[in-house]
Amino acid sequence: MDKNKFALTPPMGWNSYDYYDTTVNEQHIKDNAAYMAKHLKKYGWEYIVVDIEWYSYGAGSRRNEYQYIPFGKVEMDEFSRLLPCPERFPSSVNGKGFAPLAEYVHSLGLKFGIHIMRGIPRIAAHLGTGIKGTDKTASDIANAYSICPWNPDMYGLDVGKQEAQAYYDSLMELYAEWGVDFVKCDDICRYDADTSEQEIIMLHRAISKCGRPIVLSLSPGPAIIDKAWVYEKYANMWRITDDLWDDWKHIVNMFDRCEIWQNHVSEGCYPDCDMIPFGMIGRGFRKERKTNLTIDEQVSLMTLWCIFRSPLMLGAELTQLDDETEKLLTNEKVLHLLKHSHGAKQLRRNEKEAVWTSVDDEAGIVYVALFNLGEEFANLSVDVQELCDSLSLDFLYESQTTIVELWSGKRYMDISDNIPKHGARLFRIEKQ
Amino acid sequence: MDKNKFALTPPMGWNSYDYYDTTVNEQHIKDNAAYMAKHLKKYGWEYIVVDIEWYSYGAGSRRNEYQYIPFGKVEMDEFSRLLPCPERFPSSVNGKGFAPLAEYVHSLGLKFGIHIMRGIPRIAAHLGTGIKGTDKTASDIANAYSICPWNPDMYGLDVGKQEAQAYYDSLMELYAEWGVDFVKCDDICRYDADTSEQEIIMLHRAISKCGRPIVLSLSPGPAIIDKAWVYEKYANMWRITDDLWDDWKHIVNMFDRCEIWQNHVSEGCYPDCDMIPFGMIGRGFRKERKTNLTIDEQVSLMTLWCIFRSPLMLGAELTQLDDETEKLLTNEKVLHLLKHSHGAKQLRRNEKEAVWTSVDDEAGIVYVALFNLGEEFANLSVDVQELCDSLSLDFLYESQTTIVELWSGKRYMDISDNIPKHGARLFRIEKQ
Amino acid sequence: MDKNKFALTPPMGWNSYDYYDTTVNEQHIKDNAAYMAKHLKKYGWEYIVVDIEWYSYGAGSRRNEYQYIPFGKVEMDEFSRLLPCPERFPSSVNGKGFAPLAEYVHSLGLKFGIHIMRGIPRIAAHLGTGIKGTDKTASDIANAYSICPWNPDMYGLDVGKQEAQAYYDSLMELYAEWGVDFVKCDDICRYDADTSEQEIIMLHRAISKCGRPIVLSLSPGPAIIDKAWVYEKYANMWRITDDLWDDWKHIVNMFDRCEIWQNHVSEGCYPDCDMIPFGMIGRGFRKERKTNLTIDEQVSLMTLWCIFRSPLMLGAELTQLDDETEKLLTNEKVLHLLKHSHGAKQLRRNEKEAVWTSVDDEAGIVYVALFNLGEEFANLSVDVQELCDSLSLDFLYESQTTIVELWSGKRYMDISDNIPKHGARLFRIEKQ
Amino acid sequence: MDKNKFALTPPMGWNSYDYYDTTVNEQHIKDNAAYMAKHLKKYGWEYIVVDIEWYSYGAGSRRNEYQYIPFGKVEMDEFSRLLPCPERFPSSVNGKGFAPLAEYVHSLGLKFGIHIMRGIPRIAAHLGTGIKGTDKTASDIANAYSICPWNPDMYGLDVGKQEAQAYYDSLMELYAEWGVDFVKCDDICRYDADTSEQEIIMLHRAISKCGRPIVLSLSPGPAIIDKAWVYEKYANMWRITDDLWDDWKHIVNMFDRCEIWQNHVSEGCYPDCDMIPFGMIGRGFRKERKTNLTIDEQVSLMTLWCIFRSPLMLGAELTQLDDETEKLLTNEKVLHLLKHSHGAKQLRRNEKEAVWTSVDDEAGIVYVALFNLGEEFANLSVDVQELCDSLSLDFLYESQTTIVELWSGKRYMDISDNIPKHGARLFRIEKQ
Repeated sequence: MDKNKFALTPPMGWNSYDYYDTTVNEQHIKDNAAYMAKHLKKYGWEYIVVDIEWYSYGAGSRRNEYQYIPFGKVEMDEFSRLLPCPERFPSSVNGKGFAPLAEYVHSLGLKFGIHIMRGIPRIAAHLGTGIKGTDKTASDIANAYSICPWNPDMYGLDVGKQEAQAYYDSLMELYAEWGVDFVKCDDICRYDADTSEQEIIMLHRAISKCGRPIVLSLSPGPAIIDKAWVYEKYANMWRITDDLWDDWKHIVNMFDRCEIWQNHVSEGCYPDCDMIPFGMIGRGFRKERKTNLTIDEQVSLMTLWCIFRSPLMLGAELTQLDDETEKLLTNEKVLHLLKHSHGAKQLRRNEKEAVWTSVDDEAGIVYVALFNLGEEFANLSVDVQELCDSLSLDFLYESQTTIVELWSGKRYMDISDNIPKHGARLFRIEKQ
Repeated sequence: MDKNKFALTPPMGWNSYDYYDTTVNEQHIKDNAAYMAKHLKKYGWEYIVVDIEWYSYGAGSRRNEYQYIPFGKVEMDEFSRLLPCPERFPSSVNGKGFAPLAEYVHSLGLKFGIHIMRGIPRIAAHLGTGIKGTDKTASDIANAYSICPWNPDMYGLDVGKQEAQAYYDSLMELYAEWGVDFVKCDDICRYDADTSEQEIIMLHRAISKCGRPIVLSLSPGPAIIDKAWVYEKYANMWRITDDLWDDWKHIVNMFDRCEIWQNHVSEGCYPDCDMIPFGMIGRGFRKERKTNLTIDEQVSLMTLWCIFRSPLMLGAELTQLDDETEKLLTNEKVLHLLKHSHGAKQLRRNEKEAVWTSVDDEAGIVYVALFNLGEEFANLSVDVQELCDSLSLDFLYESQTTIVELWSGKRYMDISDNIPKHGARLFRIEKQ
Repeated sequence: MDKNKFALTPPMGWNSYDYYDTTVNEQHIKDNAAYMAKHLKKYGWEYIVVDIEWYSYGAGSRRNEYQYIPFGKVEMDEFSRLLPCPERFPSSVNGKGFAPLAEYVHSLGLKFGIHIMRGIPRIAAHLGTGIKGTDKTASDIANAYSICPWNPDMYGLDVGKQEAQAYYDSLMELYAEWGVDFVKCDDICRYDADTSEQEIIMLHRAISKCGRPIVLSLSPGPAIIDKAWVYEKYANMWRITDDLWDDWKHIVNMFDRCEIWQNHVSEGCYPDCDMIPFGMIGRGFRKERKTNLTIDEQVSLMTLWCIFRSPLMLGAELTQLDDETEKLLTNEKVLHLLKHSHGAKQLRRNEKEAVWTSVDDEAGIVYVALFNLGEEFANLSVDVQELCDSLSLDFLYESQTTIVELWSGKRYMDISDNIPKHGARLFRIEKQ
Repeated sequence: MDKNKFALTPPMGWNSYDYYDTTVNEQHIKDNAAYMAKHLKKYGWEYIVVDIEWYSYGAGSRRNEYQYIPFGKVEMDEFSRLLPCPERFPSSVNGKGFAPLAEYVHSLGLKFGIHIMRGIPRIAAHLGTGIKGTDKTASDIANAYSICPWNPDMYGLDVGKQEAQAYYDSLMELYAEWGVDFVKCDDICRYDADTSEQEIIMLHRAISKCGRPIVLSLSPGPAIIDKAWVYEKYANMWRITDDLWDDWKHIVNMFDRCEIWQNHVSEGCYPDCDMIPFGMIGRGFRKERKTNLTIDEQVSLMTLWCIFRSPLMLGAELTQLDDETEKLLTNEKVLHLLKHSHGAKQLRRNEKEAVWTSVDDEAGIVYVALFNLGEEFANLSVDVQELCDSLSLDFLYESQTTIVELWSGKRYMDISDNIPKHGARLFRIEKQ
């Protein structure tokens, strides 16, 4: 199996983290899936991802002290594999795991994803539970020195042992049986552990063996640019920042990150700008709120994510989606870039502005995005000569050229506008 | 002008540094050019590059104390531009600069290049000489805090001043008048100075304005992988290591570097593995010698450079080239990869071996290079399944497939061989 | 000569930098010296120090562009030694240098100091001027790669050459002839250059040879704690921070620095908290102002500097000293700690408060300083048991004990008070 | 209790690690103690220290895989406190712990020490065992993110919780009951964990409360020089290097470390050069051997350790001590420096030699040590003027002065000798 065929364009979906933190349950997943199927699927949104600690009892119940309760009870099978906590995922009992929930999601025409942590449960290592297909135990393959710096659940694996590969194989085998389409593996992307690279390769091999095209997503960022070739060879998407939230500073920072990663987007290989914190978020964090981003800031985020071709994962509780937000997420002409543009690059950036371009060669279209990074309205424009030089075009404007700004749908005479602070314009230039 | 059109395939040529250090003169250049034209040109070798301190009087005369004599005399025009030292380049007198020498090189059907240091001569700043087309002096645009850590000749520029761009413009204007085809700018690639990035962009702009397609080569390495997008946007080649010499450790280290840069080779954009220290080298360094690399090590170097598609710049004194060395440099089937393969990537590497692959899609050819990095003979081979997976091929061998090892010219039954220490094999696999 | 005998207690004086920057002249120095002699000398203040670029023509004349004009004209003798600029120091003409000014300062019963930059003038290296007592020139001993990161005047020395020592010897010989009592050498303390350590030793040797007990002060900070033994062995005082200005954040930061250096204060060895930015400062910087520090903040600074036993160097223009400021600088009981206490250490520190203690064993006195680092009034106190434990005392309070707060002069019943934000109290505890 | 009174001079003793690794047992301890009492006690040797993992079952039994078996069985009480493994320390059964063994050691006139790891057993956190005097469990106070990078036994403590202090208090209370005189706490000295500093303070407090003067020794090194004031305030000795073994490179490296720490030796405060790997060592490591250090190298080690005044802890199996080694450890005139010299400092050091000095002011003695760091015999000497300057002496030699080299016992005419490679001379200079 060629992993670059698993996701021919950047994945689009929803993830439970931004709203639910560790508290998500089966009904929440179903409700969001149903909403997506009804309202968003036709625009390309298709993944439903259950994020962190679906295996933990009491997850989120001591939120004032801990995001992740240390030394807490988890659901686990005889082979040291974590299972959904039956208190929150009742359909998982009797060894069915996530299969019933995945089946439901599939029945809606959507895809099903789960979050995992690198490694093997610490409690398995201390109890010495088994590893499927081997005569070893978790105590033998757990690396007692490899822990996650922000979550207390797992030990990394002793990558020198073949039973460690067997363990990852047994995980992917189980997930394939459940019908999982997408695995977001955490504590692995930014190489906090010495063994990160080897564990990425082991996960890739396990997926290759399992027979199901499971998209592999790596977290958390920032990914290491020296290791771009590793991510590109073994994974489908990798987080290029730490967690992104509804704070303009986080969006501004993403321009730094996209700048660095601009030449690393290709079919099956997507630097990931992280989930989109629009709409209602934060309940599991005990800070439930409507996003703090202004509409202009949201437009900038969507513009950058789409022209850069980041995966798009919604953080909002979908069942509470307001019309204004939904409109931002369903602009077909903007989302079109995700599937039908390429070669995105930064033309210029300073503290006041950023300009990005990309092209759709087949359709003879050039895209230009202008971002106002400053703190007041600004007239921004692109130097046409610089643009042509950059794109190796002899000319751009001619009588037959039309310029349309995709958020407003209006026609323009040139690539310039008076843009509010933190706002953006996305221009499509094409010959008629 | 689109700089990516200046060098459609990796440049091939000769550079004066490895043999002459700072002592090269006009006759040396002519002799090497003549040899290249007669013996090597037909294999694609075409650049003749005059390396460092062609402007210095007495360069190399205090070699026991200094490689580069500090505070020494240099030849300079009224606009603070360095000129060839007339004692070593007599044809340059009367303001003709390198024009006569370039003309000679062109007359042989070859191309002419020169080395420069980032910035403006220190002596110009202390004397306050002029900047062409402006009313400022070198004192105004020199950055007193920006010096090269290993050469005492220049100050970097004060990049915030427009006259600094004017100075670089005046340089490229002069070089274009001389007929220069290739500029290797030193002290800029590994960002030792805060202003490196801006100076790269300024050099690019100066070339764009000068009207001549001058290939821009950046030194010294290691280039910064975070800045890959800068090199790719503004330069043609950039050194990915510090100076490479005839020591196997340097070759082994290049596998580290090529691994990191493997996804950054494209038309007009070449990560540069540095000059090839074969044949007679070291005279200017007062260590004249036949290369210390064994033939097997030389085969490995050529194999890696060619499959990776590094620029190839010879360090050897060409007039003393022996047959064995020349044969390594004129294997047409190996050099063919430089112009007709792409997508080179490392399949596997450890302390004992490395395996690289690339393809020629149009011709339906797969290349595989096996390197023995160990200290004794070893049987190396490639796992065909791993290779197919990596290249997204369904199968590789079939009845109609031929496998040829390009250094020996022999046909093989599979991709494996018993390889001497530090040696390599380069296989071409194609359907008949 | 034992350098630890040059300054038996922390030096106290005035330095021209905070008010004049590079613009100080002879009359300024005389006026400040006269003021000190009349008003401050009796409290122990005695050094008058001419700070940076007394050798430069036009210093400060292009302040909007440069603090230090690059490639400007300097006054220099035939032996590459900088001399006072005669435009600003008219008494220095005819080779008299600073001798007349030093004589004037001495006539007031004060001591005279000057600032120098590590190394030799760049212009000397480019012109090849001589080195006294040798047949070498500045070109031979200047290190073309050793420059200051913030001042363009000098090259460091090639410390491997004995003529480099001869140059420093010639400097100190000249300064001794002038009657210099104190040399503040800049660009050397924080080891920005590879050769810093060797140049410190060379300066020490030059002073030892010159026959005059010249106090050696090193700048800028932060000094490197690994090298404490070097400073202690070869210098008298060394800056433990970067430049300190009239900003509370700088004072707070000093607690970090004093914490680290607390066990490194001894006779002839003084970690230096930098100049005191009280009163009128900033004219040469074109930001003339009364200090931005509140009185409470000034009390905190004086309390910390005195209990820690930092050298005290005034930055204020003395002739404009107001009564309130002068009172802070002439509290005899507080200044007493500088000469008659030792063993200062931090008892406790967090974001809200700091507590320091020291003792005067001979007099049977304990000092305790309480600092309110918070942003509002706070009741601060010391735990007597913790204090006794820390000082290895069996008890502290008894019937015959008196507690006096030295800023207010009031008697207290215990070591506690309600202290304004950023303020301090300094308690003296003694048996009657 | 003033911790600086716990060890008025550098501790001298024996530690089980170098010979036994994790395998030491009760009989081994007794045998070594008996040997020390009989042969070494009269020279000042007095501590017997049981090193790492005395609480582990099967320690050392899987030495080909692990030095410290992860997830293995340990002996622990109801309050999460580790107890001696009864299989190796039979006298410890029935809750007696180390009390019987300590009593035996004390009966010989010696002192008893143990090694501990920072923190609380991981298994206690996973099982939720209690904390003495509190209603919390190990799960509540263990910090799941704080682990040792080289030993898998413990979690660090959650230093923000008062029950964490209670746990350390309960440890020291237990050790005081046992009769422990010396605690070597590991995984704490080089601040591998964020909480190291706080845990050092907590240990200090626990000792202060326990009522017994337990010497606190911190490992492993290298200690952080920025934190010198912390070690000096709260501990008695702290390792200034990583583990030292019988390899000359380790000894040479110690000169780097002693240079940095030379001004930090005082009563109760000892930078620790680590155990002395002489005689028979390495059995527990399955590399039993006579030390690889030559006699000259051993002389150098002893000379440096003694003039620097490092604690001296023997690594050799004492019962196998040969005469030649024992002689090195019982030279009274050399060991005299440990108790009766001070102010040791490095006079000079380069790749070839090192010179250290110290003084015994009361006795009017100067000590000078010459070390030959080169690879062949060398004539080394000290410049008397430099020595006098350094020590602030007016003169050194006079008619009544005697110079004795302490290893040979011979009288010399001056401080110089022809010294074998890696060897040393230690001179005592005194007026008769």
